[in-house]
Amino acid sequence: MEYTFSKRVQTLKPSAIREIFKYAADPTVVSLSAGNPAPEAFPVKAIEEISARIFRENPIAALQYSFTEGYPALRDTLRTYMKTRHNVGQDSDDILITSGAQQVMDLLTKSVCDEGDVVLCEAPSFIGSLNTFRSYNARLRGIPMDPDGMNMEALEKALQEEPRARFIYTIPNFQNPTGITMSLEKRRRLYELAKKYQVLILEDNPYGDLRFAGESIPSVKSLDQDGLVVYCGSFSKVISPGMRVGYAIAPKPLFQKMVVCKQGSDVHTNIWSQMVCHTFLTEYDFDAHLAGLREIYKKKSALAVSLLEEHLAPYIKWEPIEGGLFLWCTLPDGVNMPEFCKEAVLRKVCVVPGNAFLTDESLPCQSFRINFSTPTDEQLTKGIRILGDLIREWMA
Amino acid sequence: MEYTFSKRVQTLKPSAIREIFKYAADPTVVSLSAGNPAPEAFPVKAIEEISARIFRENPIAALQYSFTEGYPALRDTLRTYMKTRHNVGQDSDDILITSGAQQVMDLLTKSVCDEGDVVLCEAPSFIGSLNTFRSYNARLRGIPMDPDGMNMEALEKALQEEPRARFIYTIPNFQNPTGITMSLEKRRRLYELAKKYQVLILEDNPYGDLRFAGESIPSVKSLDQDGLVVYCGSFSKVISPGMRVGYAIAPKPLFQKMVVCKQGSDVHTNIWSQMVCHTFLTEYDFDAHLAGLREIYKKKSALAVSLLEEHLAPYIKWEPIEGGLFLWCTLPDGVNMPEFCKEAVLRKVCVVPGNAFLTDESLPCQSFRINFSTPTDEQLTKGIRILGDLIREWMA
Repeated sequence: MEYTFSKRVQTLKPSAIREIFKYAADPTVVSLSAGNPAPEAFPVKAIEEISARIFRENPIAALQYSFTEGYPALRDTLRTYMKTRHNVGQDSDDILITSGAQQVMDLLTKSVCDEGDVVLCEAPSFIGSLNTFRSYNARLRGIPMDPDGMNMEALEKALQEEPRARFIYTIPNFQNPTGITMSLEKRRRLYELAKKYQVLILEDNPYGDLRFAGESIPSVKSLDQDGLVVYCGSFSKVISPGMRVGYAIAPKPLFQKMVVCKQGSDVHTNIWSQMVCHTFLTEYDFDAHLAGLREIYKKKSALAVSLLEEHLAPYIKWEPIEGGLFLWCTLPDGVNMPEFCKEAVLRKVCVVPGNAFLTDESLPCQSFRINFSTPTDEQLTKGIRILGDLIREWMA
Repeated sequence: MEYTFSKRVQTLKPSAIREIFKYAADPTVVSLSAGNPAPEAFPVKAIEEISARIFRENPIAALQYSFTEGYPALRDTLRTYMKTRHNVGQDSDDILITSGAQQVMDLLTKSVCDEGDVVLCEAPSFIGSLNTFRSYNARLRGIPMDPDGMNMEALEKALQEEPRARFIYTIPNFQNPTGITMSLEKRRRLYELAKKYQVLILEDNPYGDLRFAGESIPSVKSLDQDGLVVYCGSFSKVISPGMRVGYAIAPKPLFQKMVVCKQGSDVHTNIWSQMVCHTFLTEYDFDAHLAGLREIYKKKSALAVSLLEEHLAPYIKWEPIEGGLFLWCTLPDGVNMPEFCKEAVLRKVCVVPGNAFLTDESLPCQSFRINFSTPTDEQLTKGIRILGDLIREWMA
């Protein structure tokens, strides 16, 4: 049999990160390439208790088919929580529980993008989302990043030049991969531009609760008076990624199309995990849990930064961060970044080459991404020391 | 904001069944419209034990990110099980764990169908799958059903007339909605035709283990020497649908594209539920569990058929069944089927109008689908009695 594939998947490749993740499964390799939460951040005891209670008190609800829109109690809880805590969600919005935040990217792209339509995205940006957009044959146009977020002049130029732009994709807090947080001024400007050009915004906020320094900034969705913004949240970084529970808060007409697409994709999200999230939010001290997470990542990021200062400075530079899981490191001019990452792998340290996050992987890039949440302190120390030895050798 | 949608979703409607399911949530309504397993069929005690053990012994594995292809131990177990028990899977195939069987439909369509490509399907067929095919702007062409499965002359004619046919979708065992099982002769012919015209087969087998009469028939996939068949299995009917665990056994080139599409869709399937399925398959008596399920459905179907004989005969006819969850009932000529179903709802019984399962819902149809697995014996008795009263009134 000669297999032929749809145009949309002919050029799709496996995510470079998911592929590296496999390589990094080798226990002798120090992986600084994942985006996994720290294992000590999982509320294991609480989930164990909640799960036992579900099977004692309400097993059929956890095992039977459920609603495509999501577990009703979780939707109600989240609706209230996001409105009162973050001013996210209007009466004209509705909330859809998804199989991880990744599914929000999938359902929105499927709902609004014809083949050849354009998605404007930060450059660099999260490869998982970029690949989803690509998988519907959307064309990506990257908007360069300033230290306070997307460059707004470049964004307006793109909006003028791309009549087929359907939405602007942004991770405003502790962006993956750069760690950059978008200023309030730019969030306002982004919203104005989206309104002026009548283009949607997809606001992806997986790391918002992981702020360990500085002041919270209102989300773009909290500015939304016109039904322009689809907000994407996730429990992956604050409860557990293996559960695959995310959510979209979206204007109702978009919500409705996304529900129909989700019916055809997986019918509904695993119901046990939705019940676990609901009980954890309502009957446990979620605020205290988040404070604990921030403490974990504050310590880990401080260790990572001190190691960068000790081993990588002054040759390699990095973006300052106030939260999230990543550090974006830039090699000096003249150093071949892909070669550097390859040599690091041979010395048993994995980082992610920065071009993986570009709209076009073949563009030049001097940066790579380090994750500090997954490795142990010992692994982090060992890994960054090896990177430091390498750059010092190469610069000698 | 004026929302515009992609061409592929502009005409998509919510599944008639999922919508009826909401209506049927009214506790005063007897729902014969679902496709849910009987609640007493869930191995609640086993899942409770397994889940407790997971959180005692291996919590991080259940909560952390995992592989897109699926939990390795479950893949290995299923590969061996399906090969030794059902002769399904060659060395040239691989196995992908999905978020319910529905996701197999999604990933295969996405991988091989361009907009306007054709899917050949049984007419009538499972509405969830048809909607997935539609959601990629595939065109559906229905092949009429004989009492022993798809009409092979009509299939060959369609293959001749549709150069853009990409795959043939079949549910060979206890088909949804008709309950019909495809004969071995037709399975062989189907495979020959697929080979002759170089078109793939998507074999969907959610009910295969629920045979309560007659002899098992080899799957189409077990005949596959040429890499033509994607086999789709599911734990929804034999363990729990709320867990959303299904799988595809597919030729490697197709498997690889489906993996990339899954990365962009939900990264991976909920890992806890994969671990539960794995332990249930390996450490519990799965054969005894399946025998128990068959006993439950044998009794329920026998009750349903005796009620049809008592209340619906001779006016309404139905297809004989040897397994599965459904009975396909056909009204006498001259009775308006949609009106009959509407009147039944007013009298608090839900069935699914048969045209919902056609490639074109506006085509005439005299049939409706009854599910006998979800209702209690009392509900089944009450519901079919009401249908019987109705048809006798109308025929009087």
